[in-house]
Amino acid sequence: MKRREFVTGAALLAGLSACAQEELEQANSSSGSTEKFEWNMATSWPPHLPGLGVGADNLAKNIEIASKGRLKIKVYAGGELVPPLEVFDAVSQGTVHMGHDSSYYHRGKIPSAPYFTTVPFGLNVNEMNAWLYFGGGWELWQKAYMPFNILPFPVGNTGVQMLGWFNKEINHINDINGLKIRMPGLGGEIMQRAGAVQVTMAGSEIFTSLQTGAIDAAEWVGPYNDVSLGLHKAAKYYYYPGFHEPGPNIECIINKDAWETLPPDLQAIVKIACQSSNLQMTSEYMWGNAVALEQLKADQNIKLNQIPQAVFDQLREHARAAINDLINDDALSKKIQDSMSSFINISSSNQEITELAYLKMRINSSAL
Amino acid sequence: MKRREFVTGAALLAGLSACAQEELEQANSSSGSTEKFEWNMATSWPPHLPGLGVGADNLAKNIEIASKGRLKIKVYAGGELVPPLEVFDAVSQGTVHMGHDSSYYHRGKIPSAPYFTTVPFGLNVNEMNAWLYFGGGWELWQKAYMPFNILPFPVGNTGVQMLGWFNKEINHINDINGLKIRMPGLGGEIMQRAGAVQVTMAGSEIFTSLQTGAIDAAEWVGPYNDVSLGLHKAAKYYYYPGFHEPGPNIECIINKDAWETLPPDLQAIVKIACQSSNLQMTSEYMWGNAVALEQLKADQNIKLNQIPQAVFDQLREHARAAINDLINDDALSKKIQDSMSSFINISSSNQEITELAYLKMRINSSAL
Repeated sequence: MKRREFVTGAALLAGLSACAQEELEQANSSSGSTEKFEWNMATSWPPHLPGLGVGADNLAKNIEIASKGRLKIKVYAGGELVPPLEVFDAVSQGTVHMGHDSSYYHRGKIPSAPYFTTVPFGLNVNEMNAWLYFGGGWELWQKAYMPFNILPFPVGNTGVQMLGWFNKEINHINDINGLKIRMPGLGGEIMQRAGAVQVTMAGSEIFTSLQTGAIDAAEWVGPYNDVSLGLHKAAKYYYYPGFHEPGPNIECIINKDAWETLPPDLQAIVKIACQSSNLQMTSEYMWGNAVALEQLKADQNIKLNQIPQAVFDQLREHARAAINDLINDDALSKKIQDSMSSFINISSSNQEITELAYLKMRINSSAL
Repeated sequence: MKRREFVTGAALLAGLSACAQEELEQANSSSGSTEKFEWNMATSWPPHLPGLGVGADNLAKNIEIASKGRLKIKVYAGGELVPPLEVFDAVSQGTVHMGHDSSYYHRGKIPSAPYFTTVPFGLNVNEMNAWLYFGGGWELWQKAYMPFNILPFPVGNTGVQMLGWFNKEINHINDINGLKIRMPGLGGEIMQRAGAVQVTMAGSEIFTSLQTGAIDAAEWVGPYNDVSLGLHKAAKYYYYPGFHEPGPNIECIINKDAWETLPPDLQAIVKIACQSSNLQMTSEYMWGNAVALEQLKADQNIKLNQIPQAVFDQLREHARAAINDLINDDALSKKIQDSMSSFINISSSNQEITELAYLKMRINSSAL
């Protein structure tokens, strides 16, 4: 298996290289098209939301500048053009050209969709990008969206999220029993298997629901976004790490018919602008979370707690059951799970001697 | 200080946004320039070297495709056009338009240059990008290169490197005494302060020197590149983590006069192509290292060892002394060190509850 993995990686690299050569020839041979395109981008985010919303704004701006105004993209916040959870449908039908969204919102239509955002106990941000760009992940994602006439592109990542805000301590798996928690997707389903009650609500409703006790716990993103919603004033215990969303990838989705109207140079600009945006947003979260965490640490009312390893392990057993149900029902999910699992195995060894060993030693160091 | 940091981050974001708006107007107002540019890029790498060399190739290709051939870049391997260590001078003088290189090679000319690659016990890859793009790091880098008429861009990262290949075990700081080691830059200087003899040689000479016992130890990059040099056949002990290069950033450097001949849309294409390349190369290393490490782990002759925390701490004391010498002699280095240190402090807290906590728990987990 390991040898096969290696061959896949090498072949993919060679493949990309061949494609680039072909694109190069196409781009240079096509005679000076100066056709202009005006596109709409529907997003699922509040307007200019730090991280996600800013990422959508910058992506559109970069494409416009790099294309010298030949591809203008107007960005719409969630609900302005289409409701947040209907962005995928609108792009699929071509009523908007593109969207800025999270794949796990489309689970009702595509069982495997959550894999392309993040799955519980899965890949962190660097692993996710390695898998998408070099491990065949992006190709599997394209396959999953093909029936919907949509092309997906990775455009950002929040990094490991926080597990969220709780109004009581979690010392034992039984403490999750009966807990009313706002946690969408597979994470919430796992909590439900551990006895919690999964509650669905928009981000804007979390603060009031948590403060009034209508819910006992809620996850949103991490310090950078959580502080702006004021969640630190609504609950006392802030738990980490977010096992449920260890490296959530954000998507840019483009209607395939619209994509095919673009000449190769504009397609290339969109591609590199998306990859550029991916790193820019990830870096914004890395910086913004560090700054916002300082503010939270200075607040005496907040208890920053790590979830016990035993609870983590028991939730992981529930996750296995949930994932088994998913892959037994859907052949593509099985294929994706196998691909991701085989990478996670070899990546864990690599992370252990690189990022993990280094950070642990730097933080534990008595020197300086 | 923390409030100031926050303001800096926010102001920078606002600043970028304002700049983008300005560029947008410039780009759209400038009338259809179809001028073509043919540039040379000198690199310090062997031709098509996985990671570094491939990164240079792809950067040039992406720019050519996205610009529809208006900016063609011919890539030269190290020594083809200029010797590897003279790329910076050639770009500065304008004898080549751009280079693909590492800033720490320019330390003789610019004392602060190593900071923009990596410094011992410093930032990891995600922290480095957060600092460069949001923490004012890129602005400091531009300031350092301004007297040389050069604009720098981040274009890739190897991630935490390995400490390297040793022909004996390192159990105590005294084991470093008298060790002949190939380790360039500040890392080698720190080893020298601990009693080692720092030996300088090109990558291509490492294998033979290590195998014949002319040197006792050598660092190169990590599994992905080390295996291709055959270093695992020349020494037995493979040590981690590479405290000396925790997140080495690779640079694209452009002659400022050449840059200013480009219209705003081509400048924008170069900018986003560089940021795109940064993530692409980082992901290639993340994937390639994981795959190559599996190969090394299957080899019974190789001992994969972690350097003891006590040795790490003692080397860190030597690093502090080396850095103090550097910042006492150079005002810009002092400014950069202060900026990086204040970020490392807040980032360590953030990494501890996100990446570090998550990876540690996932790897320690008894479940699955």
